[in-house]
Amino acid sequence: MKAAIFKGKGTIAVEERPKPTVTEPTDAVVRVVLACVCGSDLWFYRGISDLPHGGVGHEFIGVVDEVGSAVGDLQVGDFVIAPFSWSDGTCRNCRHGVQTACVHGGFFGQGGDGDGGQAEFVRVPHADGTLVTVPAPASGEEFSDETMASLLALTDVMATGYHAAVSAGVTEGMTVAVVGDGAVGLSGVLAAKLLGAARIVVLGSTTESRHVLAREYGATDVITVRGSEAVEQLQALTGGFGADAVLECVGTKESTETAFAVAAAGAVVGRVGVPHDAEVDAEGTFYRNVGMRGGPAPARAYQPDLLRQVLDGSINPGKVFDLTTDLDSIAEAYAAMDERRAIKALVKVSSLR
Amino acid sequence: MKAAIFKGKGTIAVEERPKPTVTEPTDAVVRVVLACVCGSDLWFYRGISDLPHGGVGHEFIGVVDEVGSAVGDLQVGDFVIAPFSWSDGTCRNCRHGVQTACVHGGFFGQGGDGDGGQAEFVRVPHADGTLVTVPAPASGEEFSDETMASLLALTDVMATGYHAAVSAGVTEGMTVAVVGDGAVGLSGVLAAKLLGAARIVVLGSTTESRHVLAREYGATDVITVRGSEAVEQLQALTGGFGADAVLECVGTKESTETAFAVAAAGAVVGRVGVPHDAEVDAEGTFYRNVGMRGGPAPARAYQPDLLRQVLDGSINPGKVFDLTTDLDSIAEAYAAMDERRAIKALVKVSSLR
Repeated sequence: MKAAIFKGKGTIAVEERPKPTVTEPTDAVVRVVLACVCGSDLWFYRGISDLPHGGVGHEFIGVVDEVGSAVGDLQVGDFVIAPFSWSDGTCRNCRHGVQTACVHGGFFGQGGDGDGGQAEFVRVPHADGTLVTVPAPASGEEFSDETMASLLALTDVMATGYHAAVSAGVTEGMTVAVVGDGAVGLSGVLAAKLLGAARIVVLGSTTESRHVLAREYGATDVITVRGSEAVEQLQALTGGFGADAVLECVGTKESTETAFAVAAAGAVVGRVGVPHDAEVDAEGTFYRNVGMRGGPAPARAYQPDLLRQVLDGSINPGKVFDLTTDLDSIAEAYAAMDERRAIKALVKVSSLR
Repeated sequence: MKAAIFKGKGTIAVEERPKPTVTEPTDAVVRVVLACVCGSDLWFYRGISDLPHGGVGHEFIGVVDEVGSAVGDLQVGDFVIAPFSWSDGTCRNCRHGVQTACVHGGFFGQGGDGDGGQAEFVRVPHADGTLVTVPAPASGEEFSDETMASLLALTDVMATGYHAAVSAGVTEGMTVAVVGDGAVGLSGVLAAKLLGAARIVVLGSTTESRHVLAREYGATDVITVRGSEAVEQLQALTGGFGADAVLECVGTKESTETAFAVAAAGAVVGRVGVPHDAEVDAEGTFYRNVGMRGGPAPARAYQPDLLRQVLDGSINPGKVFDLTTDLDSIAEAYAAMDERRAIKALVKVSSLR
């Protein structure tokens, strides 16, 4: 099969690799239909974080190609979405809705063999606990490209934005600050709107296309400056109190500082940006009763509900994809995102039927 | 009037000071019946944190002695409990239940004049927003010493323990770790029990008297070692997963590390120990989806409900007081707590009637 292979900083190649097979009775093998490139893939692509050279990609939807003898809920031919990590669905952490901390869990595409989502096939451990089956469309109908993109978004980016909003405790009527207007930040805006936010302020870049989608998803205000200037603008918008909930969707030192600085007394910063040199001020947060929650999103926990909302048309998280390539051209997808020419790239691998 | 005056490290004197009077129309003056010494008073007593020399003490219950012209809810003669900070009850932060961040708020007994609770009288700003009236006992009855002590505990220590448990998100059936077995930690145990914890593990000292009260309040296990050894013991008690919720009731670097280390994936550390050199690991907490909340307790938010529970006999938070002095002997109360001869000292100032 063909698979995207990380070969070192700035280099993604598509190479021939052995097709993965069931190695544990709880495994399934999935034929990938759509994959995509994650903002977090850019960390190793840019050489900022280390990753072994090998198969990459942790976002994919596809069709079950093979199941192990202990797999009970899935059949060959099922159309499934995967979270970006596998999980057994039964351990204490899975039962508590933290599937990304499953005791038998792991993350797809960490430079290994056969478990990268940017490939023609993926081996999925603990398939029953991990995969979510997409119900077939009404007879004679097919999923539109838009729906397919939105299903793909549930594998990570939308689930991650949603986790930020849930972690920040967004409820009806709140003023919410979203730090970051990348694909996760935009998904965070959509999630905050879903949870009833009355006002959503995006602290983002100067890229106009991102503002357009942010506003379509529910943002009421966009701040395009950074650091203390951004904090001042947010405070001015909130009568000096700050935001009732904050979504941290970047993970840098500066974005994290900004997130905590714009939090109102008693607010929680919902963190989903993977921290890179980020710091948390133990004292400053204490005196203002500012909290934090979050981490790698338990996408699996949110997917059944978000899936229903995609299929009934109430959300369209796939709009964050603004570039489409095929697997052979995936290096261009990385380059476009690295150079901020694209928010997020969708990768067509095979056809659903 | 007589007032406890901080004179520098290790020195508390009782001196004559002008009786405070109403200076703003929203003020009340309260004649203090009972006061007490807080674990946080030891920070300045020990010279670890700075405080101007002057009136101290932020925990008191008493009788309204004078009210300003704009005070509407209180009358001279009312028996009241105070939170350790004043608040207007109307600003955004008060309405959101974070009265300790009131825009017109402040903390009693910060070395000023006339606003220390360890004194015969206290000036209370924003009296309507701040004070909670205690309903009169049934005709012919009087509040017992035990009830009076429990009412006093609501001014800070019990409200603070309760804030730790609420911040940590304690709910029915949880396994809860309480770091610290001082008066706040013990109150945290009682609060966790109130909120339905099934198992409560105290990580505390080797002082047996604290364990007795901890178990009376609902602790099921007591760990008396520290650092990594304590973490190992907690993990062994929880099948290696850690606690579903953690109450940090100390605030030192070591106790904070321990609190985060014993938190299960997805758990929240409810912090109420004032941080001193404490650090929060931004990355370690992220990958385990461990959160934190908390800060200075909005005692005012919890007092009406806790007051009802004291009066109907369902909680007895006053048991944390194991030493009683009068105002003239308050220096001994500080010394006894400093030397760990007492958990918490109650100071009798005047009689209720």
